[in-house]
Amino acid sequence: MFIHHVAHYLPPTVVPNSYFTAINGLTDEWIQSRTGIRERRKVGPGENTNTMALSALDALLPGLGFDPGSFDLIVGGTYTPWDTIATLAHQAQNKLNISNIPVLSVSTACSTFLNCMEIVEGYFAMGKATRALVLVADHNTAYANEHDEKAGHLWGDGAAAVAVVKEAVSENDIRIVELTTAGAANVGKALDGVLLRPLDGGCIMPNGRDVFLNACQYMAQVSKDIVLRNGLTISDVDYLIPHQANQRISLNVLEQLGIPIEKLLSNIPYLGNTGCAGCAIALSENRSRFQKGNNIVLTVFGGGYSYGSMLLEA
Amino acid sequence: MFIHHVAHYLPPTVVPNSYFTAINGLTDEWIQSRTGIRERRKVGPGENTNTMALSALDALLPGLGFDPGSFDLIVGGTYTPWDTIATLAHQAQNKLNISNIPVLSVSTACSTFLNCMEIVEGYFAMGKATRALVLVADHNTAYANEHDEKAGHLWGDGAAAVAVVKEAVSENDIRIVELTTAGAANVGKALDGVLLRPLDGGCIMPNGRDVFLNACQYMAQVSKDIVLRNGLTISDVDYLIPHQANQRISLNVLEQLGIPIEKLLSNIPYLGNTGCAGCAIALSENRSRFQKGNNIVLTVFGGGYSYGSMLLEA
Repeated sequence: MFIHHVAHYLPPTVVPNSYFTAINGLTDEWIQSRTGIRERRKVGPGENTNTMALSALDALLPGLGFDPGSFDLIVGGTYTPWDTIATLAHQAQNKLNISNIPVLSVSTACSTFLNCMEIVEGYFAMGKATRALVLVADHNTAYANEHDEKAGHLWGDGAAAVAVVKEAVSENDIRIVELTTAGAANVGKALDGVLLRPLDGGCIMPNGRDVFLNACQYMAQVSKDIVLRNGLTISDVDYLIPHQANQRISLNVLEQLGIPIEKLLSNIPYLGNTGCAGCAIALSENRSRFQKGNNIVLTVFGGGYSYGSMLLEA
Repeated sequence: MFIHHVAHYLPPTVVPNSYFTAINGLTDEWIQSRTGIRERRKVGPGENTNTMALSALDALLPGLGFDPGSFDLIVGGTYTPWDTIATLAHQAQNKLNISNIPVLSVSTACSTFLNCMEIVEGYFAMGKATRALVLVADHNTAYANEHDEKAGHLWGDGAAAVAVVKEAVSENDIRIVELTTAGAANVGKALDGVLLRPLDGGCIMPNGRDVFLNACQYMAQVSKDIVLRNGLTISDVDYLIPHQANQRISLNVLEQLGIPIEKLLSNIPYLGNTGCAGCAIALSENRSRFQKGNNIVLTVFGGGYSYGSMLLEA
C-alpha cells in the first residue's frame, strides 16, 4: 500500500492573531505562547468543506501518474460537514464522473484521516479496490465561535487530497509500512474534552487540559510502538508529523520521544488547527523534501478520543 | 462473516399524521397515499443520536452470546449527528469500557448501514478485528423542518445495534453471503436530490422525484444482481428489506423484481423514514421469523447518491 500523490488546498484569507485581540482580548503574544499559532486560514464567500475538498482534488490531478478515471474507491473525511448527505466524497465522484465505485464519508474527529486510510487498507485487503482517493477537509471556522476565548482562536480551514494505491505506480511512491488506529473513549474526559454539536453550541473545548495531556501521551506512545514494532529505533525516524493541534503538544511529543526539533513537520504556526486535514496538508507541503528511504511517522489524536499512527518509507 | 445478533430502539413518542395537518395542512389520507406513512417516532427530552444508539446497545447486550468486552471494533453510523467529535461510536466504547480497539464513525446518508458493514468486512479481511459492534442511529426530526410540506412529514427517529462476527458464534447466526456498496453521485440530481446542511437549512428534499426514480432503479438492480451472482433466482428470495424511505418506492422495487408483497419487510407505515437505521431496525424486528436457510436481501439507497445490497442466509 502506497501513497502515490498528495496535494492540498488552503483558502486565501489569512486571519492573524490581532483579529482576536479586537473581539475577545487575546493578544498575539498570549496566543503564540500558549499555542504556537501566529495566523490561520479562513474560507471565503461560497467556500465550504465540499468546495475545499474539490479544490484539493484540483491540486492533486495534474501530478497524478494515472488516469483519474481509474480510481475505484473514494473516501471522504470531515467532522465539520457542509452537507452530511451530499458529502465531499459524493462531490468528488460527481466531478470525476466515475460510475459504480464505493463512495463513503467518515467523521471521527481529528483522527479521521487515519480512519479513512485504514478503511482504504480494508478495501485493498478485500480485493474490492486498488486505487483510492482520500479527501479530508475541515471548515472549523464554520462551527467554532471566534468569540470563545478558550478555543475560538485555535481553528483554521483547509483540505487535502491523497491518491492511495495498492501497488506502487511510480518509484517515488511512499510505502505505507504500517497503519493503525484505535479509540480511547473510555479514558479521562474523552466524551466532553472537545465537542462539536451542530445544533447545540458548535465546537467548544470544555476540558482542554485533559485533551492536551492525553494527546501528548497517546501520540508519543503509538509513535514509539509503530517504530519499534517495525524493527526501527527512534533515531531512525527522519520526520515526525503529529496531529497539527497545538505546537506545545507537538514539542511535548518530540521531547518524550527524544526526537530533535528539526525532524518535526509542523504547519500550526501559520495554519492553526486544520482538523483532520492538518497532517495530510503537512505531508503534502513536505512531499518534495523526503529522500528515498526516509522514515516518516504520522500520528493523530482526536476528541472523542481516538488516535492512530502510520509509518511511511519514502 | 455473520450477523450474530441485532436489536433496536425506538423513542416512545408517536407522532400521527394528524399532527402535520395542524401545522402544514397535509391530511392523513394525503400522506398515506403518497408515502404509506401513518405515524413515526420522535425522541423525547434529552434524547439524541448518541443516546438512541446507547439504548439500542442496551437492547442488544442481553441476547449477546459472548462477553461484550470481546468486541474488537466499533463502527457508528449516522447522518444526523448529535456530536461529530464525541460520536455514537465513542459513546459505545466508553460505555463498554473496552480499551485500544478501532472506533470510527461513518456518515454517508441513508446507505450508511451498509457502508458500516463493508468497513467491518474490511477489518475482518485485514485480520484487525473479529467481532464488531455496528451502531446506526438517525435523529431526523432534529434536522428536518416539520413545517416543510415537501418532506417534513417523512422523517422518524430510531436506532439499531448489530453484532457482526467473522466466525459464527451460534448456529442461529445469519450468514452474510455477499455485501456490496457503491456511489452514484454522477447520476441525475444526486448532489441536490436530498440535502442535509447542518448550518444552512437542515434536511430538505428539493428534488424528491429524482430521488424516487433512482432509488427504485438502483435498489431493484442491485438486489437482482446480488441474487443472480450468488446462484439464486428471484423466487429463492424469502424476504426483501429495502431502505425504509417510502412505501411506494418499496412496492415499485418489489414489482420490478416480481417479488410478492408478503415477502416485503417494512416498518415505514409506523416509523416513517428512520434514515440509515431503518433497514437494521427492520432486520431486528423480523429476526424471529427467519427460518434456517431463508434468503434475505437487504438493499439501500441514499441521497448523494449511494446504494448497496447485502444477501443474507439465515
